Amino acid sequence: MAGRHFLQIPGPTPVPDRLQRAMHRQMEDHRSATFPALTRSILSRLPQVVHQTKGEAFVFPATGSAMWEAALVNTLNPGSRLLAPRFGQFSHLFIQTARNLGHHVDVIEEPWGEAADPAKIEAALAADTAHEIQGVLLVHNETATGVTSDVAAVRAAMDRAKHPALLYVDGVSSIASLDFRFDAWGVDCAITGSQKGFMLPAGLGILYVSEKALARVDSCTMPRAYFDLRAMRTNNAQGYFPSTPALSLLYGLDEALTMLLDEGMDQVVARHHRLATGVRAAVRAWGLHECARRPEIASDSLTAVVVPEGIDARTVIDLAFTRYDIALGSGLSEVAGKVFRIGHLGDMNALTLAGALAGVEMALADAGVLVTLGSGVGAALQHWRVGGNA
Amino acid sequence: MAGRHFLQIPGPTPVPDRLQRAMHRQMEDHRSATFPALTRSILSRLPQVVHQTKGEAFVFPATGSAMWEAALVNTLNPGSRLLAPRFGQFSHLFIQTARNLGHHVDVIEEPWGEAADPAKIEAALAADTAHEIQGVLLVHNETATGVTSDVAAVRAAMDRAKHPALLYVDGVSSIASLDFRFDAWGVDCAITGSQKGFMLPAGLGILYVSEKALARVDSCTMPRAYFDLRAMRTNNAQGYFPSTPALSLLYGLDEALTMLLDEGMDQVVARHHRLATGVRAAVRAWGLHECARRPEIASDSLTAVVVPEGIDARTVIDLAFTRYDIALGSGLSEVAGKVFRIGHLGDMNALTLAGALAGVEMALADAGVLVTLGSGVGAALQHWRVGGNA
Amino acid sequence: MAGRHFLQIPGPTPVPDRLQRAMHRQMEDHRSATFPALTRSILSRLPQVVHQTKGEAFVFPATGSAMWEAALVNTLNPGSRLLAPRFGQFSHLFIQTARNLGHHVDVIEEPWGEAADPAKIEAALAADTAHEIQGVLLVHNETATGVTSDVAAVRAAMDRAKHPALLYVDGVSSIASLDFRFDAWGVDCAITGSQKGFMLPAGLGILYVSEKALARVDSCTMPRAYFDLRAMRTNNAQGYFPSTPALSLLYGLDEALTMLLDEGMDQVVARHHRLATGVRAAVRAWGLHECARRPEIASDSLTAVVVPEGIDARTVIDLAFTRYDIALGSGLSEVAGKVFRIGHLGDMNALTLAGALAGVEMALADAGVLVTLGSGVGAALQHWRVGGNA
Amino acid sequence: MAGRHFLQIPGPTPVPDRLQRAMHRQMEDHRSATFPALTRSILSRLPQVVHQTKGEAFVFPATGSAMWEAALVNTLNPGSRLLAPRFGQFSHLFIQTARNLGHHVDVIEEPWGEAADPAKIEAALAADTAHEIQGVLLVHNETATGVTSDVAAVRAAMDRAKHPALLYVDGVSSIASLDFRFDAWGVDCAITGSQKGFMLPAGLGILYVSEKALARVDSCTMPRAYFDLRAMRTNNAQGYFPSTPALSLLYGLDEALTMLLDEGMDQVVARHHRLATGVRAAVRAWGLHECARRPEIASDSLTAVVVPEGIDARTVIDLAFTRYDIALGSGLSEVAGKVFRIGHLGDMNALTLAGALAGVEMALADAGVLVTLGSGVGAALQHWRVGGNA
Repeated sequence: MAGRHFLQIPGPTPVPDRLQRAMHRQMEDHRSATFPALTRSILSRLPQVVHQTKGEAFVFPATGSAMWEAALVNTLNPGSRLLAPRFGQFSHLFIQTARNLGHHVDVIEEPWGEAADPAKIEAALAADTAHEIQGVLLVHNETATGVTSDVAAVRAAMDRAKHPALLYVDGVSSIASLDFRFDAWGVDCAITGSQKGFMLPAGLGILYVSEKALARVDSCTMPRAYFDLRAMRTNNAQGYFPSTPALSLLYGLDEALTMLLDEGMDQVVARHHRLATGVRAAVRAWGLHECARRPEIASDSLTAVVVPEGIDARTVIDLAFTRYDIALGSGLSEVAGKVFRIGHLGDMNALTLAGALAGVEMALADAGVLVTLGSGVGAALQHWRVGGNA
Repeated sequence: MAGRHFLQIPGPTPVPDRLQRAMHRQMEDHRSATFPALTRSILSRLPQVVHQTKGEAFVFPATGSAMWEAALVNTLNPGSRLLAPRFGQFSHLFIQTARNLGHHVDVIEEPWGEAADPAKIEAALAADTAHEIQGVLLVHNETATGVTSDVAAVRAAMDRAKHPALLYVDGVSSIASLDFRFDAWGVDCAITGSQKGFMLPAGLGILYVSEKALARVDSCTMPRAYFDLRAMRTNNAQGYFPSTPALSLLYGLDEALTMLLDEGMDQVVARHHRLATGVRAAVRAWGLHECARRPEIASDSLTAVVVPEGIDARTVIDLAFTRYDIALGSGLSEVAGKVFRIGHLGDMNALTLAGALAGVEMALADAGVLVTLGSGVGAALQHWRVGGNA
Repeated sequence: MAGRHFLQIPGPTPVPDRLQRAMHRQMEDHRSATFPALTRSILSRLPQVVHQTKGEAFVFPATGSAMWEAALVNTLNPGSRLLAPRFGQFSHLFIQTARNLGHHVDVIEEPWGEAADPAKIEAALAADTAHEIQGVLLVHNETATGVTSDVAAVRAAMDRAKHPALLYVDGVSSIASLDFRFDAWGVDCAITGSQKGFMLPAGLGILYVSEKALARVDSCTMPRAYFDLRAMRTNNAQGYFPSTPALSLLYGLDEALTMLLDEGMDQVVARHHRLATGVRAAVRAWGLHECARRPEIASDSLTAVVVPEGIDARTVIDLAFTRYDIALGSGLSEVAGKVFRIGHLGDMNALTLAGALAGVEMALADAGVLVTLGSGVGAALQHWRVGGNA
Repeated sequence: MAGRHFLQIPGPTPVPDRLQRAMHRQMEDHRSATFPALTRSILSRLPQVVHQTKGEAFVFPATGSAMWEAALVNTLNPGSRLLAPRFGQFSHLFIQTARNLGHHVDVIEEPWGEAADPAKIEAALAADTAHEIQGVLLVHNETATGVTSDVAAVRAAMDRAKHPALLYVDGVSSIASLDFRFDAWGVDCAITGSQKGFMLPAGLGILYVSEKALARVDSCTMPRAYFDLRAMRTNNAQGYFPSTPALSLLYGLDEALTMLLDEGMDQVVARHHRLATGVRAAVRAWGLHECARRPEIASDSLTAVVVPEGIDARTVIDLAFTRYDIALGSGLSEVAGKVFRIGHLGDMNALTLAGALAGVEMALADAGVLVTLGSGVGAALQHWRVGGNA
């Protein structure tokens, strides 16, 4: 097809030309005397993205989901007990990963479309008077439903329960897009990948670890090798990596950090909010609603749209892809066929989203949903127009 | 600014990633035994873009406007008399080029927004009973006003006048976007560049020459060097070029030809027509009108939009650029401040144009034009929706 | 520094422009209907590189060393007993990885510079009449010393001992460079990465698994998540991956396979042998010798050169890097300071190696080693000259 | 063929990755408010490459040979009389260009392999007491023979003759590689292209013009259009170009200027000298000699090597290309078959040249020339070794 493809899934996100250029590098000796400059440029700036001032950040040749494992195998002994709310496919998979690694997870079930309930977490922790629960697993932004949980409130709940469990936060579709306060929220492990807010191809897993969690690494008895933070820390301290680093992606990450920090994290977050507000206005203009059950939990990085009864969301997605060259995210598991998802994170702006909304409108109409063409775009533009009511 | 820039000027047009990749080549010996394969792949396929089966096509390291000169210096003796309608900035510059080279040009003035008038050309040629006029200069698609002239009708007029003048056609913003029938229209020299329908950076001038025009090259007495087709033909015949070719652009051109011919020129033309129809619907939905005075001459490769009295089109363009990261073409010379131009040629699709129209709507509103946000996009989508009324 | 850097470490290897172009891709939906074509193109051709006709090949966003873990966690129950010869840093690390994962490894120590001794392996296995040993860990090409072990002979030894242990072969610096016969050698797991023979940046781990080893995956009780082949197989069967794939590297791998298979694996292997022969001739011309103790075990993918007594190999490497812009591999662990390593694998040819040898000669001279400038290059050229005595 | 191609023709030269990255840009509006920053960055720094402090520098989408024309058509009236020494193919073509444009050229013939003779130029100018001669055409570095003429001596000769003729210098294979003193040498027009010392693909013509020559532009009566400096100056003054600029190449040129000026022109010149000295030592070690008849005129940017009687240089070149993947320059016109040329300009270093010399040695041997393999490389390394006798 002619013209630019619209990649509007919630990750991978479009890679800006500037990062494509940065990644176009010849290889070099990753053990040379000059290599540590790159390592340090990355590791010293990664924390700023999540307002981390203590602890460390790590980068692995891997994906975000590998960081679930990296977080767990370095800080928990085998057969630990964990607590986790489940309200979407990614909170489900985080729990499954913990179980696959041999841990026991107490699951707090929430309806898909809801967020984590701090009160229930508080109650569960308060009931654990023996402090058997070693950690709380929380997906900050549930990519399956477009729901953002309140990490600060979960931390407050943990504090109220006076419980020492570690707080593991999946920030795959939030970090570098939504506000993330590593220190202030008392996060112990934060997990993400390169292909969302960092605007790169997949291939790098990024892990933020608190001092409290780092203190457990050396004594942790979990068998581990590739994800062992001990080797990583020893090497990183000298500016190196324990195995051959994914060099092209590292150069991309270094430049992505420059882009993000030059824009300023507050501005990045504000831009995502502004863009999301317009998308939600479009959804309402179409007479539809988000999968997120309450406005205050609707995600600023993606919107899962519920299709009317009798319409299969997969038809909308197929028509959008084959007729209008736009990729939308599909509904996963419980919401398969019921929702389609519009990613609006990463290197994104209003005009690209306007084009994307136009594509959604046409695909909805083609699928038999009664929408007035231009209605959603027009509603979004009200928010995006400078001096508009955004 | 975050997100993709919308480049909606009528050239240069966005370079697709596939062509960026093709151009990313190391240099090579342009005199090697293997080099002619590239030359031949390009020169054998360039004619198909304009349905040329006789004569030759040439590529120079230069721009489209250099091809005005290349056409004239190879086929006209010094001080020739020429005939040319003038109805926009580029027909003006074509005439100026001929005059700068020492030729005398009889100008048929038309209002900007009008097309060439075949009847007037016929009359002028019929009046030239001595056949002093050596050539007719015609801009197929006037990029300044978004007007397409009827080359076939001009050729018919020349034939009716039984006049032997050569027909020089500027196809800079038409070739590879609009239907162009080199043989059928009896074109003698057709002129274009790499940065519009060919979707490449500027840097290549492309010249199509008929057998009739080629027959004049050897005896032409015009002083010339760089643009001398004699050296070019001698070298091309062996698969080489007389000076070092612009290799990266040539590799891009070779791949652009594959893209265009794989899509099929009829489909390329139909796509441009479909996209243009939507843009014109948007203009009407905004309550505005095109610079083109009649619907049948409105260009399918760009639309020049007239702003209401009291509004400076430059303000619209500035606001679009600084607030919404979209580049629009400005009005040139006579229509400066009165029109802005939307390019919709090259590697373009409906969703990109929907985003562009959204940007125009916001900029118009910001500039004080009363437009309903979403109205233009909605009107365009009516045409772009598959199964819609396009 | 001006001019091209000479990257002569044994991996990462220089990335050819063709692969750089292939990796320069926009992202796409890895769950789309069109995505499986890429997955299948890769997974169907990877086996041809190692002459594998049964079993499966897998690709992870990870590195080669991660594949040590992937191989072990999918086929061995916790606390298994393994057998491994150790004769260099990478055989050491393979053993360490197994131990870190909780296995017991019987180590057969060999001097660094020697290869695996099939007779000792046979003896150890024969002594294990209870068949407690679950697997043999073998590094095919020890990157630390430039020594290639005879996998076929090890397999023959295992067969003679009638021992059912699985054969795990690290082919990181051999696969896609040296002859590797997965089926014929009865390999059960073969391990490599993208940054050596595959000529790509690091970031992909590649794992070949036999039917025998695959039969163990489902019942294997080892806790695992990211490297779990169950999820990978389920997804691969549909043309997808369980987590977001490293798309740019996958496009690179697809093109690398085309390059390798178009050249032909036999020709790739012959080219590496021819180049290595020249390098070894250079070493002898300098009056030095390889770390490999016997000519028949000298590696065709890299050469570790022993410096004379009183010279620190690190000085040679430093001078080469800072003065002549060539990166050589350093000696690791036991051979630190005693050897430097010349990588001659991947996208390599005679003239590049001639330049590299020139750089080594100058650095050796600068470090105080008495070498006649040009002597090594000249000796190598005797082998590389077409019609020469190679 | 596997491995990196050795491009050792005297232009185009290898494009460093850094410039490939710089050229990988999306298009933009070349009339935007932000565009002039690029124009100014280039035009303000181009003069530093030739130590020009007065006059102006210009960049055209064209090649170096187009700049011959650009220089002549802007500063000479039709039918002017010129003086030019001829001693190679490019001095011949410069003269032919002038003649094709209608000028009369008094040619001073020198044997190919010789340089311009200032005494003869002085004599010719002194004899022109009427000052009919309007300009002297001089090729600084004759790319066909590898001979550098002494521009300062020619200027001195002109001054001694007290002749007002303009001095036109072709610096295609010297500028940005060899020392070039625009002001000090009293050059009026200096001509080059992007594909040699500037390390870019061909496609940009670069022209330096003195104040004295600029003073002629407005009154010059030569018909001209594309190369008219009047339009260029008017546009450049505002930061723009009269036609669409070759944007990707301009971004490359901007970065090339940064590379050159960061290295420092004196260091660039010294590096070329050092590399050339080694190549000439290799030629002598092979028992051959340069086409340049005297050591003091041997070029530092390329070496034309004379093959022994009975050997066809084309055979050497063919064998080098097909067997060893190295491109050498062929002999042109008078020296066809008698010489091959080794380019050593641009982004070049010692190890690349060592590899190239190795390729030449093998091709020479294959062609039947008695050379000791390694002899030339070894001789060159004597000069290139740090602390050696360079």
